[in-house]
Amino acid sequence: MFQSFEVTARPEQGPPRLAALREVLAARGLDGFIVPRADAHQGEYVAARDARLAWLTGFTGSAGFCVVLHDMAGVFIDGRYRTQVKAQVADVFTPVAWPETSMADWLRVHVPRGGRVGFDPWLHTVDQIAQAERALAGSGITLVQCDNPVDAVWEDQPAPPMAPAKPHPPEFAGESHIDKRARLAAALKQAGESAAVLTLPDSICWLLNIRGADIARNPVVHSFALLHVDGSVDLYAAPAKFDRLTDHLGADVRLAAPEGFLAALDTLEGPVRIDTGSCPQIVADRLGDRARPGAEPCALPKARKNAAEIAGAAEAHLRDGAAMVELLCWLDGHAPGTLTEIAVVRQLEAFRRRDNALQDISFETIAGTGPNGAIMHYRVTEETDSTLEDGHLIVLDSGGQYLDGTTDITRTIAIGTPPREACAAFTRVLAGMIAMSRLRWPRGLAGAHIEAIGRAPLWLAGQDFDHGLGHGVGAYLSVHEGPQRLSRMSQVPLEPGMILSNEPGYYREGAFGIRIENLLVVREAPDLPGGDAHRAMLDWQTLAFAPIDRRLILADLLEPAARAWLNDYHAQTLEKIGPRVSPAAKAWLSEACAPV
Amino acid sequence: MFQSFEVTARPEQGPPRLAALREVLAARGLDGFIVPRADAHQGEYVAARDARLAWLTGFTGSAGFCVVLHDMAGVFIDGRYRTQVKAQVADVFTPVAWPETSMADWLRVHVPRGGRVGFDPWLHTVDQIAQAERALAGSGITLVQCDNPVDAVWEDQPAPPMAPAKPHPPEFAGESHIDKRARLAAALKQAGESAAVLTLPDSICWLLNIRGADIARNPVVHSFALLHVDGSVDLYAAPAKFDRLTDHLGADVRLAAPEGFLAALDTLEGPVRIDTGSCPQIVADRLGDRARPGAEPCALPKARKNAAEIAGAAEAHLRDGAAMVELLCWLDGHAPGTLTEIAVVRQLEAFRRRDNALQDISFETIAGTGPNGAIMHYRVTEETDSTLEDGHLIVLDSGGQYLDGTTDITRTIAIGTPPREACAAFTRVLAGMIAMSRLRWPRGLAGAHIEAIGRAPLWLAGQDFDHGLGHGVGAYLSVHEGPQRLSRMSQVPLEPGMILSNEPGYYREGAFGIRIENLLVVREAPDLPGGDAHRAMLDWQTLAFAPIDRRLILADLLEPAARAWLNDYHAQTLEKIGPRVSPAAKAWLSEACAPV
Repeated sequence: MFQSFEVTARPEQGPPRLAALREVLAARGLDGFIVPRADAHQGEYVAARDARLAWLTGFTGSAGFCVVLHDMAGVFIDGRYRTQVKAQVADVFTPVAWPETSMADWLRVHVPRGGRVGFDPWLHTVDQIAQAERALAGSGITLVQCDNPVDAVWEDQPAPPMAPAKPHPPEFAGESHIDKRARLAAALKQAGESAAVLTLPDSICWLLNIRGADIARNPVVHSFALLHVDGSVDLYAAPAKFDRLTDHLGADVRLAAPEGFLAALDTLEGPVRIDTGSCPQIVADRLGDRARPGAEPCALPKARKNAAEIAGAAEAHLRDGAAMVELLCWLDGHAPGTLTEIAVVRQLEAFRRRDNALQDISFETIAGTGPNGAIMHYRVTEETDSTLEDGHLIVLDSGGQYLDGTTDITRTIAIGTPPREACAAFTRVLAGMIAMSRLRWPRGLAGAHIEAIGRAPLWLAGQDFDHGLGHGVGAYLSVHEGPQRLSRMSQVPLEPGMILSNEPGYYREGAFGIRIENLLVVREAPDLPGGDAHRAMLDWQTLAFAPIDRRLILADLLEPAARAWLNDYHAQTLEKIGPRVSPAAKAWLSEACAPV
Repeated sequence: MFQSFEVTARPEQGPPRLAALREVLAARGLDGFIVPRADAHQGEYVAARDARLAWLTGFTGSAGFCVVLHDMAGVFIDGRYRTQVKAQVADVFTPVAWPETSMADWLRVHVPRGGRVGFDPWLHTVDQIAQAERALAGSGITLVQCDNPVDAVWEDQPAPPMAPAKPHPPEFAGESHIDKRARLAAALKQAGESAAVLTLPDSICWLLNIRGADIARNPVVHSFALLHVDGSVDLYAAPAKFDRLTDHLGADVRLAAPEGFLAALDTLEGPVRIDTGSCPQIVADRLGDRARPGAEPCALPKARKNAAEIAGAAEAHLRDGAAMVELLCWLDGHAPGTLTEIAVVRQLEAFRRRDNALQDISFETIAGTGPNGAIMHYRVTEETDSTLEDGHLIVLDSGGQYLDGTTDITRTIAIGTPPREACAAFTRVLAGMIAMSRLRWPRGLAGAHIEAIGRAPLWLAGQDFDHGLGHGVGAYLSVHEGPQRLSRMSQVPLEPGMILSNEPGYYREGAFGIRIENLLVVREAPDLPGGDAHRAMLDWQTLAFAPIDRRLILADLLEPAARAWLNDYHAQTLEKIGPRVSPAAKAWLSEACAPV
């Protein structure tokens, strides 16, 4: 079982750890220290060794940070975690509403002029430090680089992860790492740069066609790399991880221990590209004026999936869809009041594991029934585990990591007889999800320009939801992968081959939650008779197939074209998934896919 | 008659003027000179004196510029004017596709290292010069400020406009200029600034509640102003314009001749706010490091119309709608083949003039029949005037300037029997126009975030149009007024009181054009039962009422909610406009407003 349900927060551990940390700060003459959630690779997940924020405070959310001062310790958390943080941290910690209150504004109130606040320059990006320093200008407060004092007091801090790296097979990667390196090196040459610093593990894994297991949920290898303009790469990672990779990597990828990374920067001639949004401050400092800010070299090439990656994603989704259908059938076989959220999560993972293709789940399954469904980032634990009762909706958001692709799918299922207002909201969420799925748009637009299409049906009813419509997804890599997003914040043009989620939702606090999510891939739209001949347009190919609960649909609220889309989608689901499931599930699926 | 139909381009005048200009450049040791379309106030219309681009080249489009070198003269024009420029300029001028080719890239090709290219620092904004200098970095080409050499060779250059200014009555302005000045001064104080430079005539007219007639179509007074942190204003304009305004303006608005403007800048203590997007380079240079870039102080306050301005706009639109209905009725009374575009324009202006409220037209009426309708910025002349033939669609885009408001409305009308593909496209354009009119959205969104709603019906058919969905509109001021727009380029959040056009279109080159336009005003959306109680949402109040040609609508392509909107809109049109038109027009209107 990949997922665990234990309550990891131990608020009582916080105060002694905080006290020990404060002693170190005092000894070093620091007035404070910033403890971020991030590691040096700025990923969504961190290794146990890097879970400093959780170790110190007890807070386990996926974003936030703590600022420790001598007489106060602020835990900065966003709107998703306002309730969770109260349950997880002891009262020596003060929750701070962030980003409403910025770190700089908070420091200006609580730190006197002349104050020195430490930070670990591996754990903060160039942009973060520049932004913080701008915001502190004139305050008399200085940010000071230092060795990490949390590590100094964390006696049983786990060792760095040492999972072996494996080659990612060419039939899934679709392009050799030789070709990828040559392609990116040509772009560096074009830009007049001698090298680029890579610090994002998924970029390095994509570039070298390797995968690993250094952290949960993302099959990556913790490493740093330098890409040179001749296409060669210096890869900095524990040599033991690469025992069996020498043949795969070849002579143009030189392996070295991570301890040599900083010193190697000194040998580079400028200009050297860094991505200031992900590069640690210490790297930029070491490069000095040889550093040139620019786009992360792998980000867009990685986002544009090639034919092999798209085919792999499609196959992974059919396999994953079969597990979903088994689960939905199984769920329908249980009367209201007889299952709990954890039972559902266990059973879903069991179905995903059945054919032994599952490498990991792609994130902690969200299974929220009734009021828990309204908690957008709910993770069920033994303490919160709730029974699926008559009249509930359960939001089930989950995904798998397979060698051929990463999946992420959400369905909302009626338990017993759902309330009518939930059905009306579900139908509007579905209308938005369908409108986006059906969309065709002129090439060049970004997520910011089309996201409204997936929200408008809710807007017309005075409703909305407080998360983006969709995120990018990797190819057997991160389930949240940039740079493209379906978000009003995203100005990155959508391009053929990009995989994104389409996941509108609706959340009624204390009552129910709704989310419907399919992964889609951008493609060049086929020509239409009567369409503008000169106009390049894009549309979506749907990757995910699993039935959408017809018991929650008020069909007369769907316009005819949306209803036709749904019926066609269900017919395809039956055709594609039917042959992959048990006879019982197939019978259930036939009914679930009947036209509305 | 405000509109004229004469052919103003005289290509044969260009070569001798160009030769004379080149002599001046040579005498001054310049390798080139930039002749922009703009005057010092960066408006859409310029006074005859400032029409240097048209005088020199013959090109009369609303955007573009000429760069004169010794052996070449490039006329930079955007996609709208590719055809027009060829007819208007002599072959000593070389059309350059802009912005595809930037001025800097073109200069790099045609001017040697060490070259000096002159520009008039009154006619270019700070942003324009900074951008050009960045783009020329390393080229060895220098931009050099100089007195305008076009003025030196333009012997019969008209005098500056001297139309008298008039007070804008309080019942239309809705806020005294004393209150406006106090409000803006408080914002300057808040920002720590001592003064702001105002160079946009519509800002100055809005701030001081005055209107003028210095240029066509926009009722503004050419002037500059300094707004001080005490709320007082120094106004720089020809004193004769203000003969009758001393009482209206009061002691806190000091009048001075325009010649004193630059010297007055020397007396200001910093920081002084300038809007680098509109402020002439010469002003920024004069202020030096006392200049602080910031938002144009009047832009947002002017864009947020108050209750009096909204009521005025509504009344102006009903008056204007009556003229439109008379015109549409009159048009329907003529058989195909019996009218020309100019006849339609004349008759429409005659209807608008009938009650003597029309101060001006708000822009040159666009009346394009058949293939002319596909030319987005078509202006009919005696040479292009075409007959309305059976099977044509005519695009009629026009507006009026009234004391209580500025109007802008487009209708597309079938002449005889329209082709079915035009009807299908018309219905999709209408579907987009209705979808935007019906929209409700969360507060905080900008045009970029919702514009897709008005385009999606076309997109789904593989079609689109190459202009924005809508622009801001002034209150008896500019018909194109920022900063808000319904455009993928606009990041300015929409706010209650902002007036915008909603004008999707479709253009089939050589065949037909379609555009349907109403002006709308943003308002706080009324609560809906079941809507999110905590969520502030906005929606539109429609200002314009005139029938949409039912003969062009394929009603079965409209979803039921859109059809209901249309029928309700037509019922309101009959109710609001019916009492304002002649008996014959009222009878026609009843039929035109029947449900679909």
